[in-house]
Amino acid sequence: MQDNFPQNFANLTHIDHQGQAQMVDVSDKAPTFRQAVAAAKVRMLPETFAAIEAGNTPKGDVLATARLAGIMAAKQTAALIPLCHPLPLQKIAVEVTPDPQLPGYQIHATVKTKAETGVEMEALTAVSIAALTLYDMAKALEKSIQIESIRLVSKTGGKSGNYFPPEP
Amino acid sequence: MQDNFPQNFANLTHIDHQGQAQMVDVSDKAPTFRQAVAAAKVRMLPETFAAIEAGNTPKGDVLATARLAGIMAAKQTAALIPLCHPLPLQKIAVEVTPDPQLPGYQIHATVKTKAETGVEMEALTAVSIAALTLYDMAKALEKSIQIESIRLVSKTGGKSGNYFPPEP
Amino acid sequence: MQDNFPQNFANLTHIDHQGQAQMVDVSDKAPTFRQAVAAAKVRMLPETFAAIEAGNTPKGDVLATARLAGIMAAKQTAALIPLCHPLPLQKIAVEVTPDPQLPGYQIHATVKTKAETGVEMEALTAVSIAALTLYDMAKALEKSIQIESIRLVSKTGGKSGNYFPPEP
Amino acid sequence: MQDNFPQNFANLTHIDHQGQAQMVDVSDKAPTFRQAVAAAKVRMLPETFAAIEAGNTPKGDVLATARLAGIMAAKQTAALIPLCHPLPLQKIAVEVTPDPQLPGYQIHATVKTKAETGVEMEALTAVSIAALTLYDMAKALEKSIQIESIRLVSKTGGKSGNYFPPEP
Amino acid sequence: MQDNFPQNFANLTHIDHQGQAQMVDVSDKAPTFRQAVAAAKVRMLPETFAAIEAGNTPKGDVLATARLAGIMAAKQTAALIPLCHPLPLQKIAVEVTPDPQLPGYQIHATVKTKAETGVEMEALTAVSIAALTLYDMAKALEKSIQIESIRLVSKTGGKSGNYFPPEP
Amino acid sequence: MQDNFPQNFANLTHIDHQGQAQMVDVSDKAPTFRQAVAAAKVRMLPETFAAIEAGNTPKGDVLATARLAGIMAAKQTAALIPLCHPLPLQKIAVEVTPDPQLPGYQIHATVKTKAETGVEMEALTAVSIAALTLYDMAKALEKSIQIESIRLVSKTGGKSGNYFPPEP
Repeated sequence: MQDNFPQNFANLTHIDHQGQAQMVDVSDKAPTFRQAVAAAKVRMLPETFAAIEAGNTPKGDVLATARLAGIMAAKQTAALIPLCHPLPLQKIAVEVTPDPQLPGYQIHATVKTKAETGVEMEALTAVSIAALTLYDMAKALEKSIQIESIRLVSKTGGKSGNYFPPEP
Repeated sequence: MQDNFPQNFANLTHIDHQGQAQMVDVSDKAPTFRQAVAAAKVRMLPETFAAIEAGNTPKGDVLATARLAGIMAAKQTAALIPLCHPLPLQKIAVEVTPDPQLPGYQIHATVKTKAETGVEMEALTAVSIAALTLYDMAKALEKSIQIESIRLVSKTGGKSGNYFPPEP
Repeated sequence: MQDNFPQNFANLTHIDHQGQAQMVDVSDKAPTFRQAVAAAKVRMLPETFAAIEAGNTPKGDVLATARLAGIMAAKQTAALIPLCHPLPLQKIAVEVTPDPQLPGYQIHATVKTKAETGVEMEALTAVSIAALTLYDMAKALEKSIQIESIRLVSKTGGKSGNYFPPEP
Repeated sequence: MQDNFPQNFANLTHIDHQGQAQMVDVSDKAPTFRQAVAAAKVRMLPETFAAIEAGNTPKGDVLATARLAGIMAAKQTAALIPLCHPLPLQKIAVEVTPDPQLPGYQIHATVKTKAETGVEMEALTAVSIAALTLYDMAKALEKSIQIESIRLVSKTGGKSGNYFPPEP
Repeated sequence: MQDNFPQNFANLTHIDHQGQAQMVDVSDKAPTFRQAVAAAKVRMLPETFAAIEAGNTPKGDVLATARLAGIMAAKQTAALIPLCHPLPLQKIAVEVTPDPQLPGYQIHATVKTKAETGVEMEALTAVSIAALTLYDMAKALEKSIQIESIRLVSKTGGKSGNYFPPEP
Repeated sequence: MQDNFPQNFANLTHIDHQGQAQMVDVSDKAPTFRQAVAAAKVRMLPETFAAIEAGNTPKGDVLATARLAGIMAAKQTAALIPLCHPLPLQKIAVEVTPDPQLPGYQIHATVKTKAETGVEMEALTAVSIAALTLYDMAKALEKSIQIESIRLVSKTGGKSGNYFPPEP
């Protein structure tokens, strides 16, 4: 558990010495290639899962809509998360995979950039909005759908090095 | 569990008979007062929680930033969720409460409208973006923070009646 | 031709007596139900059309993406068209229909509101952005795709009465 | 006609092997200077054209409004077209030229960037929204105004080389 | 001076009893017609003023651009001001008047709605962005241009009654 | 006074030879580090100032909200100011400082980029929206609050060199 905890514990980077929220200054960093992968789960009743799987045939619009909403939301990250930097994005991919064991859907998003700071928030925003879109499209069937385990799966590139989460 | 599952199981309201995603037509509904409450949890390491709680003194900007991000995001719901209707909103409130047992934060959002359709998605979007903002502000300390249990807590008003989730 | 031309020719409603662009004042109008239907054509080479039709199998994402882009764009109309009023929208539907004779696609959008002014621009914006999205997704195959005949198909409700275009 | 059709006909770049819409990965491309020019026509009745030309004097706000709407819309392209990359833009120019023969207006947009991918969609979005704005400002006079021939006029820079449309 | 100061001085309406920023709950208010007028001044060197006045001939695009930017910004008020309610707007008018005595420009904005809360912020946002646009278009000539006296000129309608500022 | 006035007085850079508003072409410039600092004052009655200072304890949300609104607005500059270029931003900082002598608040914003053009408008937009947010949060107490002296404090980097305003 210690492994994914940085040594420099001094303070939060987004809070200055007066306790005020601030955007991190990245002007002294060089742009490098960076990638982040995030994930989320959408858990629902078996009946709801069966309806989406069936309703998704033959056009697949439920999952396609969720995927597109995630891609488009990633591009709005800097407008939604107050202290995020606006970044160029070179790739946004969102996958929505049925998981009959859950039952529900596993969502993954991969975002790439060449920039002074990483794209973790873009990937996390993509899976969050994709999951919310799934909720929206199925809420007439079941209001108790839950979105779970929104998390960073990996982060590569950048000065702070790569990140892979600890084994559960 | 059956109780929160509608009788009309025929199909998904956002998918038409050709399997295409669609916005629900609410033009034959009368506007009524509606309220939705949603919740989310942000789980983190004890050290991270302690740092936010400490760093939050005396200005409290971490939690204030998350709350404001949630309020502002609720107003962007129709732009983010493809099939949501743009609605007037009469109240958006977001609470971020420390939970030392988690450890982490419990987030609640309450949204009110007088409209032809409900504001569940606005409340769910508010807690999601508030949670992502918390992640963003603490990610330099811990990348393994997880957002959990994004869920609808209650829904009142509207033709389909009130909703309270089943006992866990 | 005269039939679809209003008697009051005095001046353009969006230009004041000094020749300055202005938003029409609708504060003395009562909100009524209104609907507008708009259409567009996307013309392409037979090979491009065949590729989209084939590539669209089995998930249908090309047309689904165009439809969703149109729905979402309709909600941004007041942000895009400078003098449009922000309106509540109760229904946005976009259809993209293959037309082998064109060859290409026929796009239709239907928008409904209960408001003081109509939703022609929302419907026209929906078909335009849906058409541009089709272009975007096929431009690697053919850059000479053309968008044609963006037009109002019908308008019902409102003080100025219904509109149906003259026979061609 | 063959000339403007690429050899690599294998599949649509925005659709992956599962038929899902995707954003093209441009992370292995180097940023280069790129320019795109797009055009559109707005066709109207002679009376409408005369009214705009007259009403445009002396302040010219109809055409100025359309031009500005096009410039501003180009900056929103990545938010409107689901699979477009957000790009820095170094120049956006929109021209609206009266064409008494049409009768109506010819609209041209030129967009420049230094980026990993081109700005065709930005130029096409600019002419489309400029044309819709013209419609909006004249629709009280004539609802049968049509937008025609939205097309790419030229594209220079980038790996795929320059593009000029075939002779009509 | 007392006259424009409300009796109920207990606390700020946007801050709850815990000192947290909040959106005012307007769900128990009835929608009524409301209007707000705001103003701003843009002061510059005589040479700059002369250049804008001259450069504005014959197309007048400097002032037209500022006016349009103000109109469009008013529609973005709820996205910019964190605790503002999203409101329907029935009229937005912006005037930019040359004032050789200043020298510079006087800007006025009038906004109307029928809603549960007023449109002061929409009018103030309109004049602010119109003024900033003027700055942007003239900053190559003079960087010392100042925007002054952004203020509410009048407010009519609503429960709190009309407001006219005290005599200076 | 002459010192802050450029020699090249020929015309406004945002107006072409036909008098039409245009975006400046920066495609032949190299990206360099640039910083801009802007300022604004918010003047109010002593009672209002006292209430904000008191109400701001212990959570300080009035000033925190204004600061965040300014930071977020800076990221929307290109969407608000018609002829601004969309730019990457590497730092946005907003300070809101109580000034009992005014009485009211002094607002400063600092914005950094590495780009082909400067960030004066981003800094000016940040202070303007921060000031408007302060107004919004205190307007129930006093509607006669005024925003004054929105101005550029300094500009460094870029071809045109550094700028510091003349002594008052």
